[in-house]
Amino acid sequence: MKYTARLLVPALVMTLPGLSPAGDIPGPSHGIAYPEGWQEWSTIAVSHRTDNNTLRVILGNAAAVQAARAGQTDPWPDGAVLGKVVWKDVQLENWEAATAPGEFVHAEFMFRDSGQYADTHGWGWARWVGLEQKPFDGGMQVCISCHTPVKERNWVFTDPAPFPPLR
Amino acid sequence: MKYTARLLVPALVMTLPGLSPAGDIPGPSHGIAYPEGWQEWSTIAVSHRTDNNTLRVILGNAAAVQAARAGQTDPWPDGAVLGKVVWKDVQLENWEAATAPGEFVHAEFMFRDSGQYADTHGWGWARWVGLEQKPFDGGMQVCISCHTPVKERNWVFTDPAPFPPLR
Repeated sequence: MKYTARLLVPALVMTLPGLSPAGDIPGPSHGIAYPEGWQEWSTIAVSHRTDNNTLRVILGNAAAVQAARAGQTDPWPDGAVLGKVVWKDVQLENWEAATAPGEFVHAEFMFRDSGQYADTHGWGWARWVGLEQKPFDGGMQVCISCHTPVKERNWVFTDPAPFPPLR
Repeated sequence: MKYTARLLVPALVMTLPGLSPAGDIPGPSHGIAYPEGWQEWSTIAVSHRTDNNTLRVILGNAAAVQAARAGQTDPWPDGAVLGKVVWKDVQLENWEAATAPGEFVHAEFMFRDSGQYADTHGWGWARWVGLEQKPFDGGMQVCISCHTPVKERNWVFTDPAPFPPLR
């Protein structure tokens, strides 16, 4: 038993978050690799849904943000990745007419590649659920069906929010 | 007249946005220099206000985001800058129960420096208005009075939204 415990301890340490970052990356969703570092991406827009009481920020990788700021989103360029980060909304304690993020729900992503993802309207669709970022594997059609109202808009709901020019 | 016109043209070109980036930086608000590059900052939270129909994203500079993710916001560390970017909200055409950013209103900032800004509760308060980013010069008290409900919270309304750990 003593011998077993000695073997186990180093193995456990290797998988602790922060000590072995490479081993900590969530698995793929629909075969798409986890977009590491999305928490640092810049903002493209925000939204509030009253039908499911969620607040969202729509982020983008560098290619997506550049396209958004330049108004070059019809179509979005290959290489652009859009991320929608979703929280349940809660009333702000100190400002009753405001809602703010409560529980983290999930982060959803659209990966633009008109060639690779030709069969799914030019986008790879992926989702990682909860703070543990569990890969969603229900099929891209789940995502696509909800986006059908915007099939004529390159399958994207988001209009980039107006931003003052970068300087 | 011809001579005057010749003199004017180069002067106008020098002030066109995009051609002379250095000359394009908005002036200070309440003596605080414009926080260049805030459009690329990472997200700390979002909010929706139904009393004035606005949607907001709360961004932070590197020091603020690091503090937010680590839960070290009581107090926020010196050097942290919080930015609140405000848009009028509009109903989303393709999803009636959703609101999204319309007109850009302003970007407001709190600059944390417990020494330099001791007289204004440890924060420098600034705002730049509209897409032209006109410096607001109405006095920090305008900002402070609105933040009085959170004077016991380091004068900050925002609770950082929960994010999965960076990886």
